[in-house]
Amino acid sequence: MSEKTRLGNFFEDFYVGQTIAHATPRTITEGDVALYTALTGSRFATTSADTFAHSLGFPRAPVDDFLAFNMVFGRTVPDISINAVANLGYATGRFGHPVYPGDTLSADSTVIGLKENSDGQTGVVYVRSCGVNQRGQIALDYCRWVMVRKRDPASPAPESVVPDLPAAIAASDLLVPTGIRIEQYDTALSGSTDLWNDYQVGERIDHVDGMTIEESEHMMATRLYQNTARVHFNQQAERAAGRFGRRLIYGGHIISLARSLSYNGLANAFSIAAINGGRHVTPAFAGDTVYAWSEVLEQLLVPGRKDIGALRLRTVATKDQPCADFPYQTTDGRYDPSVLLDFDYTVLMPRRE
Amino acid sequence: MSEKTRLGNFFEDFYVGQTIAHATPRTITEGDVALYTALTGSRFATTSADTFAHSLGFPRAPVDDFLAFNMVFGRTVPDISINAVANLGYATGRFGHPVYPGDTLSADSTVIGLKENSDGQTGVVYVRSCGVNQRGQIALDYCRWVMVRKRDPASPAPESVVPDLPAAIAASDLLVPTGIRIEQYDTALSGSTDLWNDYQVGERIDHVDGMTIEESEHMMATRLYQNTARVHFNQQAERAAGRFGRRLIYGGHIISLARSLSYNGLANAFSIAAINGGRHVTPAFAGDTVYAWSEVLEQLLVPGRKDIGALRLRTVATKDQPCADFPYQTTDGRYDPSVLLDFDYTVLMPRRE
Amino acid sequence: MSEKTRLGNFFEDFYVGQTIAHATPRTITEGDVALYTALTGSRFATTSADTFAHSLGFPRAPVDDFLAFNMVFGRTVPDISINAVANLGYATGRFGHPVYPGDTLSADSTVIGLKENSDGQTGVVYVRSCGVNQRGQIALDYCRWVMVRKRDPASPAPESVVPDLPAAIAASDLLVPTGIRIEQYDTALSGSTDLWNDYQVGERIDHVDGMTIEESEHMMATRLYQNTARVHFNQQAERAAGRFGRRLIYGGHIISLARSLSYNGLANAFSIAAINGGRHVTPAFAGDTVYAWSEVLEQLLVPGRKDIGALRLRTVATKDQPCADFPYQTTDGRYDPSVLLDFDYTVLMPRRE
Repeated sequence: MSEKTRLGNFFEDFYVGQTIAHATPRTITEGDVALYTALTGSRFATTSADTFAHSLGFPRAPVDDFLAFNMVFGRTVPDISINAVANLGYATGRFGHPVYPGDTLSADSTVIGLKENSDGQTGVVYVRSCGVNQRGQIALDYCRWVMVRKRDPASPAPESVVPDLPAAIAASDLLVPTGIRIEQYDTALSGSTDLWNDYQVGERIDHVDGMTIEESEHMMATRLYQNTARVHFNQQAERAAGRFGRRLIYGGHIISLARSLSYNGLANAFSIAAINGGRHVTPAFAGDTVYAWSEVLEQLLVPGRKDIGALRLRTVATKDQPCADFPYQTTDGRYDPSVLLDFDYTVLMPRRE
Repeated sequence: MSEKTRLGNFFEDFYVGQTIAHATPRTITEGDVALYTALTGSRFATTSADTFAHSLGFPRAPVDDFLAFNMVFGRTVPDISINAVANLGYATGRFGHPVYPGDTLSADSTVIGLKENSDGQTGVVYVRSCGVNQRGQIALDYCRWVMVRKRDPASPAPESVVPDLPAAIAASDLLVPTGIRIEQYDTALSGSTDLWNDYQVGERIDHVDGMTIEESEHMMATRLYQNTARVHFNQQAERAAGRFGRRLIYGGHIISLARSLSYNGLANAFSIAAINGGRHVTPAFAGDTVYAWSEVLEQLLVPGRKDIGALRLRTVATKDQPCADFPYQTTDGRYDPSVLLDFDYTVLMPRRE
Repeated sequence: MSEKTRLGNFFEDFYVGQTIAHATPRTITEGDVALYTALTGSRFATTSADTFAHSLGFPRAPVDDFLAFNMVFGRTVPDISINAVANLGYATGRFGHPVYPGDTLSADSTVIGLKENSDGQTGVVYVRSCGVNQRGQIALDYCRWVMVRKRDPASPAPESVVPDLPAAIAASDLLVPTGIRIEQYDTALSGSTDLWNDYQVGERIDHVDGMTIEESEHMMATRLYQNTARVHFNQQAERAAGRFGRRLIYGGHIISLARSLSYNGLANAFSIAAINGGRHVTPAFAGDTVYAWSEVLEQLLVPGRKDIGALRLRTVATKDQPCADFPYQTTDGRYDPSVLLDFDYTVLMPRRE
């Protein structure tokens, strides 16, 4: 093996406090937006039309928040998770400055926790990753933790540091993009008259539609984000030695599909403000049909705004299981086998005064 | 079912004279154009190159007229045809102001006819749909009629109103985009020296090439247009309960493929002026190979223009059937089983004086 | 067959000295770049980020050199190789003015050699193809030779002219884009600290990753380039009468994949300067997993530049064969059966003084 080839970091390469500047900054373009629409079917008016976005006070249509998230995530993979066994969870993600076509995102990650597993083969790495635009404005940051292989099982375990991550981003910490106003908000164009006031805590919404995923679709999405994790691309290696015998679908594509499906029932959730937590419960594969449902967890007041409110949501994506019965967990806390994604996040929505 | 989820209109929700403003306006971008090229292989010089378009007097390359058509169509689906059993036909479509990247299209539809079927389960809805840009200029409008399910078979039938639609857009009603001039038209760059004068009524052209469609391709195209009709995306539901056991290909994708294939034989048909009529004869599925042929139906003078003429064409798309023998209808008027699309439309072409 | 349909040139249609202006100029856009990234996974910082490109002195991110190459190649197909039996090789390709989104490429080809094969059925056509932008600046030119069918085996053989093509572009003929400076070059963002000085002649680099190709991916790439060669698109015809019973993958897509895979080991090869030679050894098909490795053939000084050097590389792409053992030729000069592509080209890389 030439020393020129990078094989990525193993568990013992990380230390708490380490900051890694990720390679390959990325200019986001209208081409990325078109592909995102073609791959997810997203229909939210704010990201679909400059005119609608302008009526809200955006200078033009921002890109979908999960497109930005997946782009930042993609940058981190070669350094953080190329040798990961599993992507365990997300927490305390917050969206800041909207991303517009023409913006260039760079990313870095800081190691905030390490815990070797008892088997001595792997360990959990906790990082906070941050995506900034070309003016140094933070587009988003979020924590995730992954199980990473050790290069050498004999290497000593580091001191365990497990970060104390809050269950959710507080309402007082949510950021509403500068200049947003909703007096011209047109519910005929957004596709629903249901505003923040019309949702109730505990309400469950079946998003009805199902979307079957093809190999080329998830690979195109994942390459668009320049995410290089091998399990998504190499059928030969997966067949020979993979855990499932086939390519796994990148979890971020499932998040994007769930968000797109959620338009039917949450059409006025014009912006994502936070990722409170999230877990990829089961891997998805080509041929799976993805469905989604959501539950309103909290109805949050946004400080200083009477015209915009926030909803904390749980969106659950399933495979091959329509969601009229809201499949989730059994009474013992185990997930229904159809559940792919359990995602806790906070959206912004116009509010009637 | 939460009341937040929209299930679309059923037959008894429509009334003649009703106008529906469709949700999710759409900014058309260079990203959409690139995807359209990647999904259809279109090679017309006017939509491929700013330089060529500029030589005709366009400020830049307009987007393909059928890309604009499919975008407008996509907007109408959640309101008009989400509960449709079949998309029966098109008529009196007219293209107006060219669409350029950066333009935002909004759409509305007016109900112009209703006729309940004798089985009492379904009815035919006739609409005129219109797509306008951000300056209120009409990009295109067209009529279509669809068979829509009733929510409640016991609901009373409305008075039957069947609109009287002309067989074709008259030459005097065709619109040539403002400022178009053809004195610099370069037939080496357009790909053919055959101009309007060189075609004859009754002439048939085999477009020769065949294009096999994959599931991911038709789904990406259909999602790009934000067309949400379920039959195109959900393999699980189609397998379980669909009429064909598999996903159907959106008919507009077949129109786009037929137009792209028609480049070989109609390379100078630089713009679509009208859709006179059209019918999706048979559904298409992934794995089908699409071919096309065209017949010149009329050679039309464009009022006030000696440099541009119009051809009324019938383009027929087939599946798994090369078109050297021009498969169409048998003597009793039934279609050859290979025919997917029977499309009657009018193109503009440079004319030698 | 209508005379309107073009069937392309056959061997007897070519003559030495003939120049063909190809149809359908092409404006390259950010949409094309997004699709190129989605289809290849390219991660080179210069083509990924305007900011990084700007730090090198580019006005913005240029498009990938092989995207430009494939676009020019695509223009040539209807005139040069639509009736080709095989694409035999490339030589003396040189990249000139960088291509930016918004540029329009036109292409022409000049016949520089002809040699009928002894079977009298086919002949080899040698052409030099050139792509120029809207200002008449040369983006690239290259030679290729293809085996083309005769229309009529009885037609007389032309005088054989076989051009004398150099084995490689000389260092003195390499073009460094105007205004490029590397004093701000950031190796954290490029993804590697290995610069020109760190490579050695004879060094071999396994690029490690593998990428499985789907039908829709290679067809989308090939249509994006408006390459119309039938063998890539028509499954029905290939099944019935093709040499392999299935669609062949366009060789340029394999070149693009190999270049993208080569990022891991050659991350600082920010620009392609020359194609010295190349051969598609074996056809690739959907389902194949592509791997690549490279060997440094020459370390070239770029005249007048102490900050930039050139590496002449051989990059070999294989199918279904990881490249840890560098599969290539056996001692008798025959290729290992896994080899798809044998590509000899020259890249530019920052150089430490």
